[in-house]
Amino acid sequence: MTMLVFGHLSPDTDSTGSPIIWAWFLTEVKKTPAEAVLLGEPNTEAAFVLTHWDCPKPRIVTEIADGTPAVIVDTNNPGELPANINALDVTAIIDHHKLVGGLETKGPIDITIRPLACTATIMHSLIGKHMAQAPRFVKGLMLSCILSDTLEFRSPTTTQEDRAIAHALADDLGVDMGELASAMFAAKSDVSAFSDAELLRMDSKNYEVGGKKFRVSVLETTSPEQILSRKDSLMTSMDSVATEDGADQVLLFVVDILREEATMLVPNDLTRTVAEKSFGAFVTGDTVVLPGVMSRKKQIIPVLAV
Amino acid sequence: MTMLVFGHLSPDTDSTGSPIIWAWFLTEVKKTPAEAVLLGEPNTEAAFVLTHWDCPKPRIVTEIADGTPAVIVDTNNPGELPANINALDVTAIIDHHKLVGGLETKGPIDITIRPLACTATIMHSLIGKHMAQAPRFVKGLMLSCILSDTLEFRSPTTTQEDRAIAHALADDLGVDMGELASAMFAAKSDVSAFSDAELLRMDSKNYEVGGKKFRVSVLETTSPEQILSRKDSLMTSMDSVATEDGADQVLLFVVDILREEATMLVPNDLTRTVAEKSFGAFVTGDTVVLPGVMSRKKQIIPVLAV
Repeated sequence: MTMLVFGHLSPDTDSTGSPIIWAWFLTEVKKTPAEAVLLGEPNTEAAFVLTHWDCPKPRIVTEIADGTPAVIVDTNNPGELPANINALDVTAIIDHHKLVGGLETKGPIDITIRPLACTATIMHSLIGKHMAQAPRFVKGLMLSCILSDTLEFRSPTTTQEDRAIAHALADDLGVDMGELASAMFAAKSDVSAFSDAELLRMDSKNYEVGGKKFRVSVLETTSPEQILSRKDSLMTSMDSVATEDGADQVLLFVVDILREEATMLVPNDLTRTVAEKSFGAFVTGDTVVLPGVMSRKKQIIPVLAV
Repeated sequence: MTMLVFGHLSPDTDSTGSPIIWAWFLTEVKKTPAEAVLLGEPNTEAAFVLTHWDCPKPRIVTEIADGTPAVIVDTNNPGELPANINALDVTAIIDHHKLVGGLETKGPIDITIRPLACTATIMHSLIGKHMAQAPRFVKGLMLSCILSDTLEFRSPTTTQEDRAIAHALADDLGVDMGELASAMFAAKSDVSAFSDAELLRMDSKNYEVGGKKFRVSVLETTSPEQILSRKDSLMTSMDSVATEDGADQVLLFVVDILREEATMLVPNDLTRTVAEKSFGAFVTGDTVVLPGVMSRKKQIIPVLAV
């Protein structure tokens, strides 16, 4: 059976690009036939990146048969994976998120988790000398994944290794990183086609703190006004999305990539408490600006309090 | 706070040697002060190995304070670690066992799990070029860990990488592997000082299958007669150990390293069913020989049925 390689549900650039990179490595270098697949429609930035590097969009799968050989990339969270994930034949995990617990394997497998900004950075080091034979689309996807996850090196998740590999790839490809990043962020910022509920679920992770279940949603954008102008209807939608998804509250952070700040929506007492206790914010209206906050992983989740 | 490095409860050679190897690497190469500690008295083989390579026995700790920085090696199973493991500041995990689930970290950390026979083999590759500066005791411990976990390359868990690194270390150290392995196995086989209950818990892992909780105990030895002559009192002890440890049944496999077979004790109907359903064994008396069975990980756990 062909090995399937996939990232998390609601694929962003890293969860779209990294499976393609790894499927290339397995197929062409390791001579193990592998296919990159997506667990949903890629976001607008990821779709742009695929087109930009002339990559066909991977097949979207909604069900994977028990026993299918698989590599999981860019997550180790069963909640972001097919419900039967522990019944697949998972042979490797490559990720850069905190260990969540819940994944189990039948035997020892290859697991590489590193505290780097991007899965593609880890893959660059795992592929090592074989990068010399990587085609242009593999290098291009790697570069795009790093620019996406580091917000062009603005995010505090950025490490020296992410930066160094991105610069080396850009040199090798003869690409202007600033231009590429701008085009990617413009694609990500164009959210006009999405409903409020789709926006709230686009880049969202579940976290529980103080007995409350939150859906922590982040929208990274270079035009926050496009989202904030829809604030009222987004707030209304928060309630129904929370109910449908079994959460107590959706938290929405609109990250302004260029100003390096987040605007949090504050529709009610619970979200006001979260804003105050987590970020020491002084809330007056129904939004609050959190200067410097760009990373859910580094700056939101670790401080979340209620 | 000094970083603590430790393996699993009931430390065997790999869980005794690997923490020392990694603490050396962190302290001397990474300039991060680290101390290897043990979560219990090392087994007789591990004690021999420490003496053989002139290594002081690491401090045995029974409690570790919340928030202590820590590296976990040779396990990812919370059941084999301090009860407050998720409250420590775990910064890395290096292991070669199946992912069990249950460990959680506050942020992304370094996790390296590989399907190799031995943790020390993984460390050899992570330490890479810095092995050139490793002192004799580090190389010696690595070699001993590999010989122990592979049963001198007899175990089916042995990979080409374990074998190649062991040979290179033996050449480098000018050591006769056969002699070293024999001395280690002789030390492991001398179990005269242990009570029946201690023997049953010496190298034991909990597994649940078919709604039954098993303590799967393995004793690797070059003189199985020393253990099997105590068969009757071991069988009596099985019941009390199971009750005290909250298991339905202790399964004891006496692995004859040189004959490459295991003898399973069959004191009752449940163990007979396990022997028949798991190994297709034909049981007549109160023991059954399982030819070729040497590895709990590869040959016992994956087939366990009831």
